[in-house]
Amino acid sequence: MILPSILQSARHYIKQALPPGGFAIDGTVGNGYDTLFLAETTGPSGAVFGFDIQQAALQQARCRLEKAGQLEQVRLFHASHHRMGEELPPRLKGKIHAAMFNLGYLPHGDSSVITRKETTIPALQTALDWLKSGGILTCALYTGHPGGQEEADHVIRFATGLCPKSYQVLWQQLINRKQAPSLVIIEKR
Amino acid sequence: MILPSILQSARHYIKQALPPGGFAIDGTVGNGYDTLFLAETTGPSGAVFGFDIQQAALQQARCRLEKAGQLEQVRLFHASHHRMGEELPPRLKGKIHAAMFNLGYLPHGDSSVITRKETTIPALQTALDWLKSGGILTCALYTGHPGGQEEADHVIRFATGLCPKSYQVLWQQLINRKQAPSLVIIEKR
Repeated sequence: MILPSILQSARHYIKQALPPGGFAIDGTVGNGYDTLFLAETTGPSGAVFGFDIQQAALQQARCRLEKAGQLEQVRLFHASHHRMGEELPPRLKGKIHAAMFNLGYLPHGDSSVITRKETTIPALQTALDWLKSGGILTCALYTGHPGGQEEADHVIRFATGLCPKSYQVLWQQLINRKQAPSLVIIEKR
Repeated sequence: MILPSILQSARHYIKQALPPGGFAIDGTVGNGYDTLFLAETTGPSGAVFGFDIQQAALQQARCRLEKAGQLEQVRLFHASHHRMGEELPPRLKGKIHAAMFNLGYLPHGDSSVITRKETTIPALQTALDWLKSGGILTCALYTGHPGGQEEADHVIRFATGLCPKSYQVLWQQLINRKQAPSLVIIEKR
């Protein structure tokens, strides 16, 4: 297939913004696959800050990172992503290269624990505030679970309202599939 | 900038589907920039079939292709793209690697001459019929001119309705700009 999946697309753009030794945020650690991707991309001289409200997810992610020998450059926080501003090192404000968000619920986890617009939108705004110029934020949206469509609508409204002088915003949808995930990519100017 | 423009994105996907010696359709020749891109990509051993209803556009495109030494592999037709099936060599049905469409009007041309849904949708369907498996069609949509939004809506409805078993369809929008162009990319399975 030539057309990329949502996951491939997110990683494609993140890779272009995140150099070895760079700084990244994983706004939704979950099973830790994206955290590992960020840790591998930035390497041992960089830093990845991961947030999740589920302790089980963080344990799984920590295990995955350790097995891959990529735990050293990662700091995991048992906290909601909308409070990331309280945990990130203040010296890195405006210096983050990349931020990834995967909304919805943890696959194979408790599907009643979902991301919600009340915390998702502030988390996205905080991550954008911390991005450097030229930094990239990706946000994968899922609409197949209860509340998913409403959250996605709010994210799209938020992204549409971003000042075009400060941000370039691309929305990718696989439009001929029902409840297909979509991806918002935001580049800070 | 990391995020691609509509034009860069269209060419990125077309390049992956169109090999040297391959076959391509330019559904809207216009000023000939995309025709030249297709001709350069497929090279002298390939073939590009271009359609436009404006003689002035075709002359301009021919001139551009000749200057670049890329006219030999191009056939230009003074015909509406919805009739391309009558002009394309029958032996190439199901063998076309790439098709490009740029809807709207010819820049610096007569802005009352625009593409219209009545012919655009049949043209897109014909181009898809002629694509090979793994072939790519791109369609750039503009909504800033009278009738543009209506045509774009029809194209999106058409693309959304394509069978997911036969086609993968990606829609890219720069959502925080007013009347920003968007791009539909269709891959035939």
